Amino acid sequence: MNFPRRPITISALIFLLTVLPLAFPKETSSSTDHQFPRPLILEINESHHLKKSPAAEESELQCTSWRVAAEANNLSPWKKIPDECADYVKEYMEYKGYEIDLQRVSNESVLYARTLNLSGSDGKFSWVFDVDETLLSNLPYYVDHGYGLEIFDGEKFDEWVEKGEAPALKSSLKVYEEVLALGFKVFLLTGRSERFRNITARNLVRAGFRNWDKLILRSTEDNGKTAIKYKSGKRNELVQEGYKILGNSGDQWSDLLGTSISERSFKLPNPMYYIP
Amino acid sequence: MNFPRRPITISALIFLLTVLPLAFPKETSSSTDHQFPRPLILEINESHHLKKSPAAEESELQCTSWRVAAEANNLSPWKKIPDECADYVKEYMEYKGYEIDLQRVSNESVLYARTLNLSGSDGKFSWVFDVDETLLSNLPYYVDHGYGLEIFDGEKFDEWVEKGEAPALKSSLKVYEEVLALGFKVFLLTGRSERFRNITARNLVRAGFRNWDKLILRSTEDNGKTAIKYKSGKRNELVQEGYKILGNSGDQWSDLLGTSISERSFKLPNPMYYIP
Repeated sequence: MNFPRRPITISALIFLLTVLPLAFPKETSSSTDHQFPRPLILEINESHHLKKSPAAEESELQCTSWRVAAEANNLSPWKKIPDECADYVKEYMEYKGYEIDLQRVSNESVLYARTLNLSGSDGKFSWVFDVDETLLSNLPYYVDHGYGLEIFDGEKFDEWVEKGEAPALKSSLKVYEEVLALGFKVFLLTGRSERFRNITARNLVRAGFRNWDKLILRSTEDNGKTAIKYKSGKRNELVQEGYKILGNSGDQWSDLLGTSISERSFKLPNPMYYIP
Repeated sequence: MNFPRRPITISALIFLLTVLPLAFPKETSSSTDHQFPRPLILEINESHHLKKSPAAEESELQCTSWRVAAEANNLSPWKKIPDECADYVKEYMEYKGYEIDLQRVSNESVLYARTLNLSGSDGKFSWVFDVDETLLSNLPYYVDHGYGLEIFDGEKFDEWVEKGEAPALKSSLKVYEEVLALGFKVFLLTGRSERFRNITARNLVRAGFRNWDKLILRSTEDNGKTAIKYKSGKRNELVQEGYKILGNSGDQWSDLLGTSISERSFKLPNPMYYIP
């Protein structure tokens, strides 16, 4: 027996066990038991320990389902996120889910914008952006307010708006700069009140947004209107002025539906609140 | 030197080299080397390794994000599901995800229908249902065709349709029976060709759907129209006949958008295919 050689062979095996996975670096989302690299684990442990508990799995399925229903506009108006999804929404917003979804919408928007031929548009081709949770992120506010678990408090939110410190959604800034460079007229259509015009404009500039054509805010005559009605009315006016709305980005369906709907609309993710 | 043992060890190494890849059968586009569960041995003691591998987690996040984008109508027309989400979509359809999402849309639809006051409607209040993946499930077909991973094959699908064996989506049958009981006129508006009228009607009855007011199929004059244009045109006709469309259920956005849009629309989940 050549004992001196054996440890080397074992080292080689351990080396292989460690290094071989690197040769197959990619996995899929949906590993069920038999799809998981079980043989390796079974030598050490039981594979079912690698899964979430059934209760945790069920909760995640239910809250994902709730979020998908919200994004697909299947839910009736809701005032706050479901209590049982509080941790789910927090993790979604703070971990990777929100960022991945934002990036995907941003990429789709840019791809679409680049397909459009703006020659002969006489400067009348336009893109409409909502502001809150579309260009500017109020996440620093919602971090302190349960990510939508608290009923919306208009006064507290207004105090946050007055600070003018909302950061840009970088993925939206990319779309914004792209459509400007392509020659679109850019309209910002926000549910914020007219009295926040200056601070909103300052906040936008500070966050990197420039050269919009119009910043449209809610005037006193629009008070009491639902967002969908107010925003439809403002889009109607743009169309009457001869503008063609080719793109519209918003985190609420009330930014996108109604009348004078854009050629194509992009629904940015927002599981924290709903505006009818 | 123990020569007799050496060939066995080499065989073991060759065996490992051959078999280990099978333990990592699935690939995705979006993971990188450092996300793989490299130190497998560490999994004995460290509890945080009881979670999914970072690569599997990343892949699931990406495919969930793709599915959400599809449900929110953020994607440009797509021909087939992304290769890297093949297993994800299969698990979604076969495990609990699809069923949970269907149930949620069904519950929301019934809740909404019950809020409507149909008195004084003169029998003109209506609900429009799409057929495929809305009332009838073609899952038995798609099981054999990669759940949307294969490019759609119209001839093969027509052979499946001719069998008339598509089962009901039970969650939709519940909505159907509820709105009938509430007194809605029910219109079925399908992209299926007029030549499938008889088999479609027989299939629907076999699956438990009865007493619809009209079954509208695509006639030769509708050939070449996109689904959104064809269905909008048919809804326009219903509205011109005096019907008020209060609810609309469909698994495609082309069932729901366009003209004569319903008061409220319900987007049933479908990550397998997209019809423009």
